[in-house]
Amino acid sequence: MSTTVIQHVLNRLRDIGVRHVFGVPGDYAFPVNDAIAEHPDIQWIGSCNELNAGYSADGYARVHGVGAVSTTYGVGELSAINAVAGAYTDHLPVFHLVGMPKMPVQAHHSIVHHTLGNGEFDLFRKMSETVVCASAIMTPQNVASEVERLIAAAFYHRRPVYMAFPADLATMPVVGSAQPIPAPASDPAQLDAAVEAVADMLGRAKSACALPGVLTARSGLAPEVQRFLDATGMPFATMMADKGVLNEEQPAYSGMYDGKLMNEGVRRFVEGSDVVVLIGALMHDFNSGAFTANLDPGRTIDIRHHHVSVDGMTYQSVEMKDLLAALTGKLPRRQWPHISTEVTRMAPAGGSGGDSITAENLYPRWEDFLEPDDILVAETGTVSMGLAFAKLPSGATFHNQTLWGSIGWATPAAVGAAIAARDGRRVVLITGEGSHQLTAQEISQFGRYGLRPVVFVLNNHGYLIERLLCKHPDIAYNDLANWRYSELPKALGCEDWFTARVSTLAELDQAMDAAGKAGTGCYIEVMTDTYTAPPLAGQLHDNIESLYST
Amino acid sequence: MSTTVIQHVLNRLRDIGVRHVFGVPGDYAFPVNDAIAEHPDIQWIGSCNELNAGYSADGYARVHGVGAVSTTYGVGELSAINAVAGAYTDHLPVFHLVGMPKMPVQAHHSIVHHTLGNGEFDLFRKMSETVVCASAIMTPQNVASEVERLIAAAFYHRRPVYMAFPADLATMPVVGSAQPIPAPASDPAQLDAAVEAVADMLGRAKSACALPGVLTARSGLAPEVQRFLDATGMPFATMMADKGVLNEEQPAYSGMYDGKLMNEGVRRFVEGSDVVVLIGALMHDFNSGAFTANLDPGRTIDIRHHHVSVDGMTYQSVEMKDLLAALTGKLPRRQWPHISTEVTRMAPAGGSGGDSITAENLYPRWEDFLEPDDILVAETGTVSMGLAFAKLPSGATFHNQTLWGSIGWATPAAVGAAIAARDGRRVVLITGEGSHQLTAQEISQFGRYGLRPVVFVLNNHGYLIERLLCKHPDIAYNDLANWRYSELPKALGCEDWFTARVSTLAELDQAMDAAGKAGTGCYIEVMTDTYTAPPLAGQLHDNIESLYST
Repeated sequence: MSTTVIQHVLNRLRDIGVRHVFGVPGDYAFPVNDAIAEHPDIQWIGSCNELNAGYSADGYARVHGVGAVSTTYGVGELSAINAVAGAYTDHLPVFHLVGMPKMPVQAHHSIVHHTLGNGEFDLFRKMSETVVCASAIMTPQNVASEVERLIAAAFYHRRPVYMAFPADLATMPVVGSAQPIPAPASDPAQLDAAVEAVADMLGRAKSACALPGVLTARSGLAPEVQRFLDATGMPFATMMADKGVLNEEQPAYSGMYDGKLMNEGVRRFVEGSDVVVLIGALMHDFNSGAFTANLDPGRTIDIRHHHVSVDGMTYQSVEMKDLLAALTGKLPRRQWPHISTEVTRMAPAGGSGGDSITAENLYPRWEDFLEPDDILVAETGTVSMGLAFAKLPSGATFHNQTLWGSIGWATPAAVGAAIAARDGRRVVLITGEGSHQLTAQEISQFGRYGLRPVVFVLNNHGYLIERLLCKHPDIAYNDLANWRYSELPKALGCEDWFTARVSTLAELDQAMDAAGKAGTGCYIEVMTDTYTAPPLAGQLHDNIESLYST
Repeated sequence: MSTTVIQHVLNRLRDIGVRHVFGVPGDYAFPVNDAIAEHPDIQWIGSCNELNAGYSADGYARVHGVGAVSTTYGVGELSAINAVAGAYTDHLPVFHLVGMPKMPVQAHHSIVHHTLGNGEFDLFRKMSETVVCASAIMTPQNVASEVERLIAAAFYHRRPVYMAFPADLATMPVVGSAQPIPAPASDPAQLDAAVEAVADMLGRAKSACALPGVLTARSGLAPEVQRFLDATGMPFATMMADKGVLNEEQPAYSGMYDGKLMNEGVRRFVEGSDVVVLIGALMHDFNSGAFTANLDPGRTIDIRHHHVSVDGMTYQSVEMKDLLAALTGKLPRRQWPHISTEVTRMAPAGGSGGDSITAENLYPRWEDFLEPDDILVAETGTVSMGLAFAKLPSGATFHNQTLWGSIGWATPAAVGAAIAARDGRRVVLITGEGSHQLTAQEISQFGRYGLRPVVFVLNNHGYLIERLLCKHPDIAYNDLANWRYSELPKALGCEDWFTARVSTLAELDQAMDAAGKAGTGCYIEVMTDTYTAPPLAGQLHDNIESLYST
């Protein structure tokens, strides 16, 4: 039997690693849904809604390197579009597969459901173009080459792509064939020049610090960065969006760098270094201590995916992988100065018994709770602002939507991460209850698919980070409906989970202990007072002008 | 104190009827959120997420004539965009108020949160332009005139509009002033010509039938349509999207017209009439029995908002209101033939005791359950396909997203309708469980705001309408996570609600009886087998080719 358009696309997505597709089915998408459900190497993962499906594909791609989401026309794809935008900002190659009405329906401008009623069928693709790096309507004639173009674009930019499938064309046989587009290669002369420039700048430096960034993890190049650091002996610090890219349990790790807001010793070390080497790290408000970070461009080497800037000179067509390999081979190992005294673990967790739970005694407990190789999904808001300063155990990774910052992302993203990590890595989801309310129903997919995460929901009676940033902290819009969070898992079908609602340290310690041993999914509602917050949140409160400056 | 940009907009929205704004707060939107919370005549209604907020504004606008939703930049507005598109297709004037970063941040192309990280700030407004009829960035200089333009556009088209507020400009004083734009008026010559043409066509007819449509309700013209029918003695039938626009408890009501799929007697009556008068009714797939309706254009009068077509000739600048008034005054009352035998109530509800619940005995019970003036919110899928053929009691209205068909809409829309109907009209939400999963958390807002709806969740173990339309009904993607639906209200903070899970007719009858008397919110999970479906769903299954034809 000849391969159909959608089968061919799925085969190619399988080739590049897609094993699960998240989605909500719909009639225009049935040919896509059918092909996924029937594909021998790909599993359909049903999501409660399309936004959640998109977030799950995001979480899956963070762990697995690539993800996919399937939605129907109009209603489905627009519901997912915010999640696709998040994948765009976070450099995740997520494939958005959209089912469309048949071509004759489009050609006749028929007034059919899931349209605006104006007979136009190219509107939603255009809306999506802003938040993807490439898009196409897949046909028998173009699918062989277009799928290669879209795959190459998704991996070159590490961004989502959009593929729409008219229902009649999706099941027609592929016409023609095409070869995969080769991986990008460096221009040899540019690469040589860049290596020389980097070596020269570092050769003249007495101190240097690397800032390895999230783009290296997205590109699968964290091992190459580690080899570069090992070979050169260079220390590194980490910014918030980049946390967990490298193992924090190593002497080279110098702590979290967040401008002037946190860790003054780390700031002095980084900003005082003769050279700072950014490796796939991007500067933005929440990655720079609300723009209080101050890196001298004249002393900065900025290595990106496909180019590098050294002291203001940019070398194009220089692949990060090639550059790291060349530098690792060429640069001498040196005794670079390391930071001496900065504490990179939190203060020991204090308090006990009937003490109430505060930021000061909660975040160190979470730090202690983490185990090697954990996948920590930390929601936007005060929880990620606290957890970013926990020291991660070996192999543990930290996931946060630092730039896009769409609250609600974490719960479905943790589902996606858990599907990707069925090999056994533990997923720990920590979310504020305000963010959780946006997407809480996705908890049900953990139970449905037999996943066993540990979920902490911090219940502080409202949107805490907003209370700290707005004019009147107790204004009505920061309040929420009062849920019985710890009753949710059972109502959502997670029948055998360990659940608890804890208000004292004794209860918290007991629940954490039980969660560590449960062997089931766990869901712990952590009650604090309305205003207890980690230090960074307080710093942002005190530096609002800087946060909203330019 | 001088009025600020956002205060002026809120004052004008108050003037046109907005009393509640649904939304999720966010830092760029704080000036908007603050002004809403502090406005003496407008109440902030917090929603669990932005999509739900948009749906609630839609439901509110259906009952109240106008609605508003407030979101933050990027993440918030994109999450709401599918709901805004739904308001667009359903001709609802919903005002989308979006908070943006300050102008200097935009001018400096700063890389800040809730952006794509590319320094561009005009991308999301452009994405929204597709699904609104007008948009503007509100400034001190333009707000006086722009708010009038946007209000006029929203009411002229009965469509949503988009207003963005840069955080720094929102709190600056308004510069200048502007008068409201007058309501549209007919061109007298065109109106006279149209009246003549309609009168002439009807004068030659021996039979006629009206099809009053949803646009008349959206324009607040249902009373004028009723007067037209009373004055002329003309009978009417109703299509699905138009249900409940007029009282079904009147002799002129001739039943539901759904092409060849349902009610053959109604079809023969409508299509056999010498003249069919469409009054604000739009033909599309699910409003035309999957395109099996067959209205002869040569015998059709098509009255729209702002123009009318008579036998292929279109008269522009003819306002529906003016035309209806003129026709009501001019046309003689006649003894138009009425349909004689078509049953417009369902067959009596059969079965009792331990009988299982089937479509045949469930839908008539729902018909019986409805009371005068109820607001019935019926979710897309099999439930609306069944409920459309229930006869509504006097004053009851029927709400469904027939064209856009975005599952998940109904639950938050019912919240919006209930906020709008705090005068005492009862809201009855009937949804399938698959659709409910998309937005179920919004149930919590009923409890939070002291609303007392009756909610029925039909649990048939998956997406039933999809099972009936796809290739393999039992294919994996039509399955869902198993929830304990009836435990949701309590977990979501609806503490005092009456809840039940019913599997037999005796249980159902008892629960319905209790719900009628409860005086609290009620939530009834109705268990049926996987495939019991109302007749229209079966007809669509049998007419798939027609549904997806052109």
